[in-house]
Amino acid sequence: MQLGLVGLGKMGGNMRERIRRAGHTVVGYAPHTPSADAHSLADMVDALDAPRVVWLMVPSGEATQSVVDELSDLLSEGDVVVDGGNSRWTDDARHAEQLGARGIGFVDCGVSGGVWGLENGYALMYGGDAEHVAKVQPVFDALKPEGDAGAVHAGKVGAGHFAKMVHNGIEYAMMQAFAEGWELLEAAEEVTDVREVFRSWQEGTVIRSWLLDLAVRALDDDEHLEQLRGYAADSGEGRWTVEAAIDHAVPLPAITASLFARFSSRQDDSPQMKMVAALRKQFGGHAVENAKSA
Amino acid sequence: MQLGLVGLGKMGGNMRERIRRAGHTVVGYAPHTPSADAHSLADMVDALDAPRVVWLMVPSGEATQSVVDELSDLLSEGDVVVDGGNSRWTDDARHAEQLGARGIGFVDCGVSGGVWGLENGYALMYGGDAEHVAKVQPVFDALKPEGDAGAVHAGKVGAGHFAKMVHNGIEYAMMQAFAEGWELLEAAEEVTDVREVFRSWQEGTVIRSWLLDLAVRALDDDEHLEQLRGYAADSGEGRWTVEAAIDHAVPLPAITASLFARFSSRQDDSPQMKMVAALRKQFGGHAVENAKSA
Amino acid sequence: MQLGLVGLGKMGGNMRERIRRAGHTVVGYAPHTPSADAHSLADMVDALDAPRVVWLMVPSGEATQSVVDELSDLLSEGDVVVDGGNSRWTDDARHAEQLGARGIGFVDCGVSGGVWGLENGYALMYGGDAEHVAKVQPVFDALKPEGDAGAVHAGKVGAGHFAKMVHNGIEYAMMQAFAEGWELLEAAEEVTDVREVFRSWQEGTVIRSWLLDLAVRALDDDEHLEQLRGYAADSGEGRWTVEAAIDHAVPLPAITASLFARFSSRQDDSPQMKMVAALRKQFGGHAVENAKSA
Amino acid sequence: MQLGLVGLGKMGGNMRERIRRAGHTVVGYAPHTPSADAHSLADMVDALDAPRVVWLMVPSGEATQSVVDELSDLLSEGDVVVDGGNSRWTDDARHAEQLGARGIGFVDCGVSGGVWGLENGYALMYGGDAEHVAKVQPVFDALKPEGDAGAVHAGKVGAGHFAKMVHNGIEYAMMQAFAEGWELLEAAEEVTDVREVFRSWQEGTVIRSWLLDLAVRALDDDEHLEQLRGYAADSGEGRWTVEAAIDHAVPLPAITASLFARFSSRQDDSPQMKMVAALRKQFGGHAVENAKSA
Repeated sequence: MQLGLVGLGKMGGNMRERIRRAGHTVVGYAPHTPSADAHSLADMVDALDAPRVVWLMVPSGEATQSVVDELSDLLSEGDVVVDGGNSRWTDDARHAEQLGARGIGFVDCGVSGGVWGLENGYALMYGGDAEHVAKVQPVFDALKPEGDAGAVHAGKVGAGHFAKMVHNGIEYAMMQAFAEGWELLEAAEEVTDVREVFRSWQEGTVIRSWLLDLAVRALDDDEHLEQLRGYAADSGEGRWTVEAAIDHAVPLPAITASLFARFSSRQDDSPQMKMVAALRKQFGGHAVENAKSA
Repeated sequence: MQLGLVGLGKMGGNMRERIRRAGHTVVGYAPHTPSADAHSLADMVDALDAPRVVWLMVPSGEATQSVVDELSDLLSEGDVVVDGGNSRWTDDARHAEQLGARGIGFVDCGVSGGVWGLENGYALMYGGDAEHVAKVQPVFDALKPEGDAGAVHAGKVGAGHFAKMVHNGIEYAMMQAFAEGWELLEAAEEVTDVREVFRSWQEGTVIRSWLLDLAVRALDDDEHLEQLRGYAADSGEGRWTVEAAIDHAVPLPAITASLFARFSSRQDDSPQMKMVAALRKQFGGHAVENAKSA
Repeated sequence: MQLGLVGLGKMGGNMRERIRRAGHTVVGYAPHTPSADAHSLADMVDALDAPRVVWLMVPSGEATQSVVDELSDLLSEGDVVVDGGNSRWTDDARHAEQLGARGIGFVDCGVSGGVWGLENGYALMYGGDAEHVAKVQPVFDALKPEGDAGAVHAGKVGAGHFAKMVHNGIEYAMMQAFAEGWELLEAAEEVTDVREVFRSWQEGTVIRSWLLDLAVRALDDDEHLEQLRGYAADSGEGRWTVEAAIDHAVPLPAITASLFARFSSRQDDSPQMKMVAALRKQFGGHAVENAKSA
Repeated sequence: MQLGLVGLGKMGGNMRERIRRAGHTVVGYAPHTPSADAHSLADMVDALDAPRVVWLMVPSGEATQSVVDELSDLLSEGDVVVDGGNSRWTDDARHAEQLGARGIGFVDCGVSGGVWGLENGYALMYGGDAEHVAKVQPVFDALKPEGDAGAVHAGKVGAGHFAKMVHNGIEYAMMQAFAEGWELLEAAEEVTDVREVFRSWQEGTVIRSWLLDLAVRALDDDEHLEQLRGYAADSGEGRWTVEAAIDHAVPLPAITASLFARFSSRQDDSPQMKMVAALRKQFGGHAVENAKSA
């Protein structure tokens, strides 16, 4: 089939390649991008036969909204837009309604896979009406990993990004779990070879997992992680997961703890712990450490 | 080689079988157990040629201590005791010292594998002096899974149980991560097929893991887990992990949250939330729910 | 001065009384309320001399929005609207802009005090332009407690509700702190008189506080809180506090833990702990409790 | 009455003064201390008429044990030892047994008050047999604050230190609550005067408390706490509180979060966040910050 693909960054570029390998035609567009196959969104749309399928791999928020706005004018009844970016699930219903008013279908799709996706395939979680999903199915089949798993029609519009968001929330807590365990092992004087303990866990244990494999790989590169700072960014999906949990009154203590640990890691000095220090100083004459500037 | 094995429960019985399949001789003993190969600890010791290796698979605490006490009299210089049970790592140095005073070696070994171990092998983490470990090595090789991973000499006496304990702490937080994600997906009206979302994650995602495979298996048995109560026991090792973290001033927010979630799950009514309700009633005239008995 | 007051519930009714005791004229309106002084918003506005001040004590969200919509038509340039309800701080800028387009000022005001406010005064936190605040000042002075503290111009529009929201977030964690301590004391067999321990803390300790006084009062009513269920509602402001923290990448572990404890308290059975139980059953043959219906 | 007082540090010295002001005789001893009233423990004991009461204000652990050991030889049947230091409650039963074997009574007493105790009195929580407590009562009455509250016979031996430990656990979470709220207010651009918001809370709010008063005092000294580092020590009792909770399977999420926040505050770089950064780097090609030394 033919696919219009908007966004040719690290993810979009690799996905174009994987879809082409499966025998499909991809017309890729991104502004100011030499490898683009079209010079404008309009050119891209013109190059596709109706009914068209256009896949977005664009930063969430304003950038995605702007492309949706343009496509709602350029596309025609019966076409389908797939938002494969990291949009917040709450944007999806709005986009579906906006495009639906023009007879254009909408599917949201969470995509996991990172730099490994080109070779191994991308895990896909998508939401939307069955008739819209059906039009995209050959592309989903091209992108997904081999095997039975790796792709799911998760539910209504929004379900794809919701499922991907929860995937990332789980990922936060799993990473935090390994990180906490690693720090504790490194702190124990009895344990003299933490890296080999991690390696041993790759077989026969309850916690064997791809993240464990990556941890071993990281420790093989740098046994005590001395080359890295204890500083972790967050991509927004962890925050959205906690917000969704609050909306639904679902307690998420481990995932939220993992998010907060990242927040703390980015503070050079903790304001809240200044207040704790100040209170200790007030009530107890406890010695506190003065700021370096003091 | 020959091995004395004390404890023939679900774990010990299967381990005897796996060691025998590797061609070793096992003299198993457990009190009041028809399948035992010896009628007493003394008989078991007599049936082994020196230098002997005796492996304990006995409940931690008093039961293990009692066997160590007896063996310190029955065994001889050059023999080695392996504690393969779930002992707290802080017991190991004491046992090593007690046996060492008689010239008997000591190795502690954390064992993971559960009911799957007989066929797939047991992950092993052990601690102790190299000379003592060497005497047990053929048994470790018989028990461990195939492949390079699955067994590690983690460090000094205590390191084996410490590493196994941390493994279990990580396991707590990973289970909690999947559990939190599952509850949130079930709460989202957009997501209509949570089980298939979980299944899809088994390929191509960051969170693919054996625990995810088990979650899918559990959902295949009972899609919404309606046959189970939200009640989770804990086996002690999660508690010890948090205590070890406190000893080392290592923050473990996700693992501790997972432990506390289990504590809460076992309370029919939460005392602390009675107090919160009482305070709300006092200061705000907030409506609170009276106890059923009221 | 004259004040229009919309909303005559438990809070609004008592506030009308306290403002009147200070010598001001209050024209109160609420639909279908016998004690109302005006039969409609329009009547209320007509009864006030310009420049008018109208104070809202109406449920946040749609109800408040609806009154703001009506008042933006009924009021005139130079008038001021005060939102004293529990609005989310993010609503305030929108209301200020909407009213400001008509020349009407806007002040947001968080109010604390509950059933004790009529006699002891209400703590007030307000935000907005100084000129608008100045027009409301006599009412603030009437409502606030005696003494220097109890009222603050916290900053720009939104600052009042933001400060009140954070107050409530702190309140959540303080209540949780006493609740956790109480449960632990009740669990300790050494401690035979937990209520008297709480009472003793009212003098000379670091934790003496009004909430502690309320806890003692609650324990005097019902020593072991047997008349209450461990079930705590939340009023929204705890949720907003966590959301604001996420917006600002500020870690709030204790406040968030307190919110999640309330969420959990309202679940008859915990879905996430069903999943933990299911995983334990899968990997270990651990005994789990079946649902009562099973 | 007469009292032997061992330990004349900041706490012990002030307590001697307060007891003397109440008209009692105090024989204070501390090694190498010019202000001591006796030159040795033996001298101190000799200076007291039987039945004697000896109060310890000595660091917990070995120092306290050593004094208990000596006193068990020096004292006589019918005498009473009071441990007023910060001993772990699990030490108390051992000390009571050791002394009881010689007919010497034992009372454990948690003392709160810090530098304010001399003038305002010390909050006291004590545990032990009624007959032993009775012998110390005049000293308790001298030390406690005025008013009905401030002292409690909390239960059996150990109950005093247990109650004081829980007091400190609650204190950790209350301090954390104010600290989290303060950081969030400082981060909000709407709120332009955080210090005045805190000051306003001192009247009429749900969270008014002595700790809030101290926070205001600290902010008056240093409005944005720029003179302090975000670094908070812990005195051991927070750790013990969490350990006691684990022993009793009581969830303490807010108190534990407060303890972990202190642990984190003392790490220049977080090992666990290095692992999170390493995993992000492995799976996603996410940019991570290299260590400064890299």
